[in-house]
Amino acid sequence: MALLTRIREPRDLDRLTPEQLDRLAAEIRTFLVDAVSKTGGHLGPNLGVVELTIAMHRVFDSPKDKILFDTGHQAYVHKLLTGRQDFSRLRAKDGLSGYPSRAESEHDVIENSHASTVLGWADGLAKANQVLGRKDHVVAVIGDGALTGGMAWEALNNIAVAKDRPLVIVVNDNERSYEPTIGGLANHLATLRTTDGYERFLARGKDLLERTPVVGKPLYETLHGAKKGLKDFIAPQGMFEDLGLKYVGPIDGHDIEALESALQRAKRFGGPVLVHCLTQKGRGYKHAEQNEADRFHGIGAIHPDTGLPVSSGGASWTSVFADEMVELGREREDIVAITAAMMQPVGLGKFAKAFPERVYDVGIAEQHAATSAAGLATGGLHPVFAVYATFLNRAFDQVLMDVALHKCGVTFVLDRAGVTGDDGASHNGMWDMSILQVVPGLRIAAPRDADQVRAQLREAVEVKDAPTVVRYSKGTVGPAVEAVCRIGGMDVLRRPADATEKPDVLLVSVGALAPMCLEIADLLDKQGISTTVVDPRWVKPVDEALPGLAAEHRVVVTVEDNGRVGGVGSAVAQALRDAGVDLPLRDFGIPPRFLDHASRKEVMAEIGLTAPDIARQVTGLVAKLDGRLEGADETLEAAETVKATEAADATETAEAVRD
Amino acid sequence: MALLTRIREPRDLDRLTPEQLDRLAAEIRTFLVDAVSKTGGHLGPNLGVVELTIAMHRVFDSPKDKILFDTGHQAYVHKLLTGRQDFSRLRAKDGLSGYPSRAESEHDVIENSHASTVLGWADGLAKANQVLGRKDHVVAVIGDGALTGGMAWEALNNIAVAKDRPLVIVVNDNERSYEPTIGGLANHLATLRTTDGYERFLARGKDLLERTPVVGKPLYETLHGAKKGLKDFIAPQGMFEDLGLKYVGPIDGHDIEALESALQRAKRFGGPVLVHCLTQKGRGYKHAEQNEADRFHGIGAIHPDTGLPVSSGGASWTSVFADEMVELGREREDIVAITAAMMQPVGLGKFAKAFPERVYDVGIAEQHAATSAAGLATGGLHPVFAVYATFLNRAFDQVLMDVALHKCGVTFVLDRAGVTGDDGASHNGMWDMSILQVVPGLRIAAPRDADQVRAQLREAVEVKDAPTVVRYSKGTVGPAVEAVCRIGGMDVLRRPADATEKPDVLLVSVGALAPMCLEIADLLDKQGISTTVVDPRWVKPVDEALPGLAAEHRVVVTVEDNGRVGGVGSAVAQALRDAGVDLPLRDFGIPPRFLDHASRKEVMAEIGLTAPDIARQVTGLVAKLDGRLEGADETLEAAETVKATEAADATETAEAVRD
Repeated sequence: MALLTRIREPRDLDRLTPEQLDRLAAEIRTFLVDAVSKTGGHLGPNLGVVELTIAMHRVFDSPKDKILFDTGHQAYVHKLLTGRQDFSRLRAKDGLSGYPSRAESEHDVIENSHASTVLGWADGLAKANQVLGRKDHVVAVIGDGALTGGMAWEALNNIAVAKDRPLVIVVNDNERSYEPTIGGLANHLATLRTTDGYERFLARGKDLLERTPVVGKPLYETLHGAKKGLKDFIAPQGMFEDLGLKYVGPIDGHDIEALESALQRAKRFGGPVLVHCLTQKGRGYKHAEQNEADRFHGIGAIHPDTGLPVSSGGASWTSVFADEMVELGREREDIVAITAAMMQPVGLGKFAKAFPERVYDVGIAEQHAATSAAGLATGGLHPVFAVYATFLNRAFDQVLMDVALHKCGVTFVLDRAGVTGDDGASHNGMWDMSILQVVPGLRIAAPRDADQVRAQLREAVEVKDAPTVVRYSKGTVGPAVEAVCRIGGMDVLRRPADATEKPDVLLVSVGALAPMCLEIADLLDKQGISTTVVDPRWVKPVDEALPGLAAEHRVVVTVEDNGRVGGVGSAVAQALRDAGVDLPLRDFGIPPRFLDHASRKEVMAEIGLTAPDIARQVTGLVAKLDGRLEGADETLEAAETVKATEAADATETAEAVRD
Repeated sequence: MALLTRIREPRDLDRLTPEQLDRLAAEIRTFLVDAVSKTGGHLGPNLGVVELTIAMHRVFDSPKDKILFDTGHQAYVHKLLTGRQDFSRLRAKDGLSGYPSRAESEHDVIENSHASTVLGWADGLAKANQVLGRKDHVVAVIGDGALTGGMAWEALNNIAVAKDRPLVIVVNDNERSYEPTIGGLANHLATLRTTDGYERFLARGKDLLERTPVVGKPLYETLHGAKKGLKDFIAPQGMFEDLGLKYVGPIDGHDIEALESALQRAKRFGGPVLVHCLTQKGRGYKHAEQNEADRFHGIGAIHPDTGLPVSSGGASWTSVFADEMVELGREREDIVAITAAMMQPVGLGKFAKAFPERVYDVGIAEQHAATSAAGLATGGLHPVFAVYATFLNRAFDQVLMDVALHKCGVTFVLDRAGVTGDDGASHNGMWDMSILQVVPGLRIAAPRDADQVRAQLREAVEVKDAPTVVRYSKGTVGPAVEAVCRIGGMDVLRRPADATEKPDVLLVSVGALAPMCLEIADLLDKQGISTTVVDPRWVKPVDEALPGLAAEHRVVVTVEDNGRVGGVGSAVAQALRDAGVDLPLRDFGIPPRFLDHASRKEVMAEIGLTAPDIARQVTGLVAKLDGRLEGADETLEAAETVKATEAADATETAEAVRD
């Protein structure tokens, strides 16, 4: 790492020779394989952009010029070149983020890991440069996969017409995101790739032309008109030029000199220009290059020599869904599956293999997934769209206005719901049970274990006249949690020990938090607080039997792995109000802020979503109620007094609980 | 209307001669101008598609074949041809919807009036046809404006590659939505339009070719390869063909014979094909043709001879915003404005005229509007994106992950918030204050009158590190509502008459409902219930002073012109819980269902969002509390008893109130 360790900031690249640059690229690859195989992370995408990132940082002057990465998981090389070479705690608490992070570096801009945003950002930054008269450059790196997202199109349509607004779009074309990129665009890029020989032919005189200054106008540009005419006869003109974007390429994305030359041309052009770079995901690491499934897109810790995982857990939530989908596919010919470019990660690989004619990869296009599902349902099928919970945000309007308004039987399976942790703020699935609450008719299942995933998926696909949602966590599914009995559609998981007295607390447990809720109940028991634990199974609509059950208790507590604001707790509270059950209620969930990356366990502890934390607060509330029932009725004074007491009590309780 | 009245269903068109078809088109235009000038509605778009709709219904066999309209406001002609000719109550309660409606006709499919959805629907329906082995056709009509939306791109990318899946895309190219269509796509369509002469040249032999059957393969297709090669030399190949879509056009959209011929070719093609039709918005009605602003896109009632409105109200919410934006633009050079293809309707016309270099029409592209705004803010400007409240749903993910996560100072101005009524389910702005509640750091202002629109817009654009939202209603702004005093950031609008006793009700009034809330307080007064009315002004976050103020009352009531689920009422309830203020609360708002079209007043009455309705329910709640304070504490029994009593009381109260 003799060269890499000498790079403290991008300008340190300026003095390296071509040979040194190639050695640097090799050092970076060795570093990445070594570091990421220890920590886990996005290996393949970063191995593919080593030369490209070096070239961009040589041609452009970050942070004055803005180098923007779409999705951001391919910014590891960028981190290495901008003063961040300690990867020992990559994606771990207080370590480097797996994505760009403004807190880490002034070289980072976009932290959002949802795809296809970069061209929108770039358009905005370029417009700001124009309004403010700045001559800085804006460079947006976007994968071919992300170009399938609608946002990218909206941005291209805007960028293309501003002829006097410089903006460089670098298409990092590796023919895939997680999966091979699909659709008409992918085919078009393939066509452009075949013009390689033609481009080399044209490029022969390029260096000469570029080195020949013409007063007021570079010779390259002067000759461009003629070149364009020629191009029409030899190669497809290309949809990008049809839109009005200058197209440069295709360029070998692993040839630093060629990349620099193309980027220099783009930089000088003075308007919007697209540089088409061909890269290989996983480049230089044989296990990644050979893995056709995803070329090591995102990995856990692996052994660097074998490329195999160093540990493996039990069955995942995803795999339970994956197997049940195949069963359902066998039983019902009307069931079809949809993925937004994540066939394997969401568990649809087995279904796709069994029923290739009944599965659709729509690209990174959640909007289209939802609306085409409405069409499929209207056409007589039952689509199941499996997607990471956080990415469904993209399709909120379509779920509401296409699926729900039209009463379509579409099932949304939300994987990676709740706190996922190490991928940072934009990967946590903490929004779904809040925003989906507003969708009329939509039903949400939050299964607590593998049996419930299977059972509730089956219940979901039986619903013909409304959207259904099945949401579950990331990772290994816990042990089965048996029900004591069922009330309405709800499973009672635990009854108070003493059935003769009115119990204190009704604890409403949502999904995978059932074991935690049972633990809370045990802790409360030790404080002499009797608790019923109920799992509503379907958290929207609120079960009709819930208000009646609640009224048999003194306090209602809800616990969910979702944002507190407008979540299940709020829905339960509203249902109680509507039923005239005006009991004190406390709703526990994720606070309304973006969460820094850390392990799920660390995040849950930090936000107080642990059994001891919740037990402590509930103990305080019950103590307050006991106080109020004995006398005071003046609410504000009482509340304030109690709040102080509560704080003191809570500390003691917590200590008691921890003993 | 001799011909029109004889058309009861599409097949009645089959026996008409070419001359009769032209007469029918003329009759339909006369009918539309006459009918829509009485009721208001979308005139221009429908005048533009008269011939196109006739041709589609002659070539395709609806409802077996699915004819799908994007946005749906251009479906009036379709209604006339499918048995719906009573336009007397168009867009009025129990009259015809202004959009397709499944309840009205089996010929209607898509009710969603948000743009750019039709290709997603069509892709889903075509896939279902394929899976189920049906030979039915799917025809999707989309405007050039709607093609700027990202969903359309996502769909095109999918549709283009399914070579064996028939699907006809009709691009209704009138060069505008509300505004002239913007962007690279618009320029490309313009290029295609200029190939008109070329197309006529190619079309010369067309009829002959089409009538010459070749075993197994129509002659037209056989010759198509050669034609394609020729085309490359004469006309731009076109981005649609680059994607893999067959392109037919451009076609004169007012020539029924040419349209039928093109649609027949498309129908026979057996794969995805795009038919490019050129139409003129407002065709045949001189006032619409000549009105360059929007060619009578959507109108209120007008005089058919002059094209002028028959009535005009006072200043609108929109116009107050419009004027203040110009002021702000003069004062602050960093303020820029964004519209998604609705410059005039959202009130940005004046700003655009005054500061043309600081306004961006991004097309029907709310996602791009939000994310490019994040870029603009990061670049040092303060963008104001003005948009109809319901359309912001499209950009939820971008508001959350691009604007809020990155702490960008972007102001979203949501027009037409709350119940808008006559445009039906998908135009009501009833979601924004719920889904935006979950966005960390975002602040929402709900101004109650014109002064507050101005004041709160100014407060909003001062916020540099978070998104801000200013939301207001459709139509005429009411009279100023003065504050008695301010507590925290909240305006107290009314104090109880008797200041010596603890007041009963804290009534939290949101935005334009202030006058209604004052009326509720008066009605409660008559029942001996003392009420404080407070307008929080900023409804997110909940004002820190609110729980304390609430605790001085016995009951809290919230009233908002927004969905009840997860709205301001839920946020207030949560804030009270978090502060330990466990008071009974009732939250009034729009129930969680889609609302049928009717006037705003009728809708508000139907959903019980009126002063007498709310006063009656609050009276019942206070009566219940009085009962409970006198004795009972057993909540469920009490609640059930009180609920029965409440119902009885409520009836009496209502009568009392109405007297």
